[in-house]
Formats: sequence, C-alpha cells, structure tokens
Amino acid sequence: MPARNIITITTDFGVRDHFVGAMKGVILTINPEVNLLDISHDVASYSVVDGAFTIAQAYTYFPSETVHLVVVDPGVGGERRPILVQAGRHYFVGPDNGVFSFIYEREERVTVRHITASHYFLQPVSRTFHGRDIFSPIAAWLTKGIDAANFGEPISDYRRFANLNPKMESENLAHGIVLKADKFGNLITNFSIALFPQFVQPKAPVFQLEINGQLLTRLHNTFDEGAPGETFVIVGSSGYLEIVCNGASASRSLKAASGDDIVLTFQ
Amino acid sequence: MPARNIITITTDFGVRDHFVGAMKGVILTINPEVNLLDISHDVASYSVVDGAFTIAQAYTYFPSETVHLVVVDPGVGGERRPILVQAGRHYFVGPDNGVFSFIYEREERVTVRHITASHYFLQPVSRTFHGRDIFSPIAAWLTKGIDAANFGEPISDYRRFANLNPKMESENLAHGIVLKADKFGNLITNFSIALFPQFVQPKAPVFQLEINGQLLTRLHNTFDEGAPGETFVIVGSSGYLEIVCNGASASRSLKAASGDDIVLTFQ
Amino acid sequence: MPARNIITITTDFGVRDHFVGAMKGVILTINPEVNLLDISHDVASYSVVDGAFTIAQAYTYFPSETVHLVVVDPGVGGERRPILVQAGRHYFVGPDNGVFSFIYEREERVTVRHITASHYFLQPVSRTFHGRDIFSPIAAWLTKGIDAANFGEPISDYRRFANLNPKMESENLAHGIVLKADKFGNLITNFSIALFPQFVQPKAPVFQLEINGQLLTRLHNTFDEGAPGETFVIVGSSGYLEIVCNGASASRSLKAASGDDIVLTFQ
Repeated sequence: MPARNIITITTDFGVRDHFVGAMKGVILTINPEVNLLDISHDVASYSVVDGAFTIAQAYTYFPSETVHLVVVDPGVGGERRPILVQAGRHYFVGPDNGVFSFIYEREERVTVRHITASHYFLQPVSRTFHGRDIFSPIAAWLTKGIDAANFGEPISDYRRFANLNPKMESENLAHGIVLKADKFGNLITNFSIALFPQFVQPKAPVFQLEINGQLLTRLHNTFDEGAPGETFVIVGSSGYLEIVCNGASASRSLKAASGDDIVLTFQ
Repeated sequence: MPARNIITITTDFGVRDHFVGAMKGVILTINPEVNLLDISHDVASYSVVDGAFTIAQAYTYFPSETVHLVVVDPGVGGERRPILVQAGRHYFVGPDNGVFSFIYEREERVTVRHITASHYFLQPVSRTFHGRDIFSPIAAWLTKGIDAANFGEPISDYRRFANLNPKMESENLAHGIVLKADKFGNLITNFSIALFPQFVQPKAPVFQLEINGQLLTRLHNTFDEGAPGETFVIVGSSGYLEIVCNGASASRSLKAASGDDIVLTFQ
Repeated sequence: MPARNIITITTDFGVRDHFVGAMKGVILTINPEVNLLDISHDVASYSVVDGAFTIAQAYTYFPSETVHLVVVDPGVGGERRPILVQAGRHYFVGPDNGVFSFIYEREERVTVRHITASHYFLQPVSRTFHGRDIFSPIAAWLTKGIDAANFGEPISDYRRFANLNPKMESENLAHGIVLKADKFGNLITNFSIALFPQFVQPKAPVFQLEINGQLLTRLHNTFDEGAPGETFVIVGSSGYLEIVCNGASASRSLKAASGDDIVLTFQ
C-alpha cells in the first residue's frame, strides 16, 4: 500500500518570494520525511479557475493517498472556509472557493470537510497567509497518519463552479470556452473527448470551430502535421480539444485567452 | 532530534539556466541522502537586500539544524569572503556581503566563520561560480556531520547592512523604505509590528503613510475588506506593514518599488 | 556504489502549467522512492540547442547512475524516435533530435537505444505529450533496476548537431557562435578552454573578439574587475569564453543573442 507521504503544492504565489519556502518549512517541521512536489506556483494570480484546471490535470497521475495542497485564495482571511477533500484515492487541502470543482465532477466518492481543528494550525494564524498557517500544517499532519475526521465535520454546501462544461444548444451546436492558454500559447478548450468522442474516431468529424471571429475546420494528430504557422485543432494530452499553431502561439495569433467563447458546430 | 539533512537554496540565478542544477548535483554527489528545497531562485538580480529579506522570511519555519545556502553574490571572485553562519538553531552558507543581515539582527547567538578549508571545495575553483564550487560543497559536508569549526575560524568584522530599520525622527514621525514588492505587487515596508505594536491593537491607530506623493490612512485586516482597486495598509504575514491593493498591484498603482522612501506619521 | 535513484528533469514546458507535475506523478507512481531534481523547465521553447547545452552543463555534477530526463521535443508524435542513452556513468532519456549532442561529443563510451518496449509506456499514449506517457515511465523503470537492454535495441544513426564547435579558418582566426545568453545576459560562446587553453595561461593572449560589429579586447578574471558597465571577456564557469558586462546584461548592451556569429582573432 502506498503510504501517505507525498504532498503536491499548487499556488499562485510565484517563485520570486519567500511564500512557498515558508510553507515547505512548516511542513518539514511537522513531518521531515515527507516528499514535497511542486505542481505549479505560477497559476494566474487570483484565478481560481486556472488553479482548478491545473490540479485537475495533474493529480490523477500521483500515487494513492497523495495529499494535494492547493492555495489559490483571493478571499484569504474572509468568510470562505478552509476545507479537506477526500476524493477517490486522493486528499486535497485548500480554500472552499471552487478550486476543486473539476475533482468533484470527476470523482464518484467525495467527502468535503470544513477544517475547524485549530489546534493543528500554526499559531498565531495570520489574516493573509493561510497557506502557511492553516493549509500547510493540515497537509503535513495528514501525512503523519491523522485521520481526516479529526480535522472537521463533513459539509455538503461546498462551492463548485457551474459552467465548466459546454452548453449543448442542439445536437450539432455547442457553446464552450477556453479553459486556459498554456505556456506554448495552445488554447485548451472545455470540449472534452468524453463529451465529443467523434474526435478520436478513425473517421474525423466535419466540424467548424469559431473563436474571436475566426473559423477553424482542420483536425490534425500532431503539431508537426500542421503547416508552419497554421492554426488548427488537435486532441490534447489532457483529453480536451486544443487550438494550436505549429511552432507558434495560437493564443497570440488568435488574440485569444482564458475565458473566451468558442462555438462548435457539426454538419 | 532533527538531523542535519535539509538544505534550502536561495539564489538570483533564475531557473532558465543550468546553474541551480549543477549546484544540486554537487550536493547530491557528496550526500545523496540530503533533502533539497528551493526557497527562491528569482531574487532580484544582484540584489543582496532582496536576498537578505527572502531568506529572513523563510528560514524560521524550517526544522532545527537546517542548512540554508544563499548565493546572491555580485562580488563573486573578488575580495568578499565565503562565510558559514551559525545563528540560533540554523546554519547559513554564502558570501559575506550583508545577505545575512536580518538574521544577525534577529538571532541572539551568532557565530560567523570565514570559510578557508579549501580541501572541501570542488577543484578547480572557478572565479565566477562559487555557488557550485565553494558554497554547495560546504553545505553538503555540513549535512554529513562535519563540525562547523573545521571549515574556518570565527570572525567579527562580517558585513551587515546598517539601514534595515526605520529612522524615528520623533515619537510620531518615522522614515522607512519599501523592502520589496512581492509577486502580487504588495509593497512590504520595514515598519515592523515589533516596532509599531499599535497596528495590532484592538483600536487601530490614526496614522498617515506617505509614499511617492500619495497619502494612505486606511488599515484593513484582510485584502477583501478593501474596495476593489482601493490601496490601503495591512499587517502583512511577515510581521511588517504592507501597502496593498485589493485584487491589483499596489506597486503599479503607486509606481513604487523596492527602496522607495515612506514617511509614517501618527496624530 | 551510488544507486540508480536520482532522476533529473529538463524541459521547455515552463512551470505555469500541469505538465511537469503530471510527469512527476507518473514517475512516483512507478517508483515512490526516487529523488526528483529539476534542472530547468525554462529551456527556450522548441530550442533543442538550448536544451542540449543546459543538460550538458549540469549532468557531470551528478552522481554515477543518475537518470537524466530531457524533454525538448518540438517533433513529438512525429517520426523522431524515443531514445535511451548510456554515456559514461549516466543515463539519458529523451527524443532523438540532437538534444544529447554535447554528451555524445564529451563521453567516450556511448550506447544509444531506440526505445520500443511499449509495455512500459503509460497507456493510451497521447500524440502530444510523450514526456508524460513514454519518457517519464522509462526513466522511472530504469531507477527500479530494469536493465537498459530491455527497453530497445542499440542504434548508430542517432541525430547529432554538426556545428557545435568553432571553425578554425587559420591558426589565428576562428568563427564561433553564441551558445546562449544566460539569465544575467552573459553571452556563453562555443570557444572552449579545451580548444583555446591560452586563455587560462598566466600570460593572457592578445586577442580580438568581434560580435555584432563591436570589438572586445579585454580579458578579466572576475565580473568586478570590469569597470561598471564595461563589456569584456571572461573564462566562464562552464569552461567557455563568455562575453559579460559588470552589473549589467551584455546581451542587451551588444544586442546579441543565441546563435549570433563571433569572430576570434589572435595577433
């Protein structure tokens, strides 16, 4: 059985400052044996949706019992609750602001607890850095084998985003959005292969994808099947349609970014 | 007892190049069991003050006996000495250029040694990369249990910055500076709560903070107590007053940066 | 004997997205005991040459049997082969696109295998993220002690760059290039000390180095031997001549970048 000794960390704190280092120190002071892994600290500042997507794309690859610490927390110190999520084989610790929405959607067994066991917190708790003072200690104590039930009671009114999935206007017309532009400028859409399996059939569908007034109709298997500079669609490694450009940034060429509308139509 | 098996690393080397990787390789070759943690590699280039602040904000959270390697070293290869600092429960290795000034100020028991035991260095020692050739091996040998006294003799004329604290012009007037603008554009000042405890009293003080010709008079507890776009003061998680803007960058809105003057007056 | 339990990772994936996190999860699921070290994830996007230089400058410092995972892979999903390289005391896993060229040149004992053992891959293999689906699992299984021969047959027609070395036009005239501009704007050239040992002799050579229409004739030992703002030559910590500027970016002051031509002449 894999032990509960891995903590992944996802934040929008950047790596310029001391924030992430302080969190790691807090964790190692509680459990010096833990294995700390960074997912990303460059989630778009204050973007809960970007944080939600980032952890959703990474967590499934980790061993059972991994603890995923996610601190994208623009409401820190306000009324949003700190939560501990058990979902499938994994644990998640972070604020109740929707950052675990994709996980709630994907996993069948989900328990969400409001963290109230303040004797586990780093005292005094600051008003602006719960990543260090609340979430890091809870994650660390989890890896010491403390049972999740000790940290707080289950809740059912936790926050989740409603509009992560495309809206089917008809059988042949769907409205979606750009979930994020990745480092290469690839535009990851919310059109998943689970919803649109025709994109991975041997015979590609006849489709039209409209974004920012431009129409895309080509589906390729790989980046280098596109002509240099061509903008086209691929089935991305995350299981979503991506709008990409061979050797260049589709985000730049289409002036498109996270949140932009996309219309997908089939003939 | 925590073993001496953690090394944190703080540099201005960035993460684009091979520099940090080479340092980690040198350390692991000497001690494959060590636990390596990055604090930041994006200290402002050549800024000893920024490096000093970054390590000062992170080290206290780490376990006893942690070795903190700090390489912000614009004078590398020149006359500045390599030093090994024992301060409180921690070890520090780096150049004698003031980068440990905050630590000298905070810790009561401080021993600073001039590192001269060149048989521990990676030979031949380059003239421009002592992070790899001198500081990393010393940090690694420390974690192997070599006693600090073996690396060099204590010195008392080590370098420390004089002006880290605000100047009290009178009981109600203090001149300070911006220590750094963090990733979010929050301006961390050198007005500490230790010096100005009235900012954490139940009854907030009546004050005026002047920076770049603008006057701030509002103190809030959390970011989201501010109106969207409002610039105000909070007690930051580092124990210093911070000038912040709800959901935006105070650095940008005030055109302010590290080193800028601030005048604090009380009524 | 050092065990095969360290994996270094070098990519152009950046640290904004989930890519590197997913790779680390795949590796830890196969071998939870492995020690994961980042060399860089900010290799210039799509630049196989920059990736080649980065790993070449870092790998020699790591212990024997280290596995170096290098994913700078603009041709992912196309015809380029996945390869496993044994060179000297190290293992390398990545695409056969020249990214290991410096290693082929430096090491005497080199075996390159075409990775074909698809039962070790993460299934289904995506067309655009072999870093996660092919290279990470192979690196992880290597650290579990699987013999390299199990992953595929040796090949001899692997790809290597031809023009990494300067061209000697005559005994006193050489044409070279800028290999990379590092984070500080130092221009690392391909004039190595191995080829030009006169630069480390007690008596410095009389030379002229031309780049972008400007002539440099000064050699200094350290950065701070240069006057503030002076642009000059040093023997860099990588064993190559570097064009640097004291306290500033030579890349900016000379408007020079990776790939730019340099002419070196001796009197």
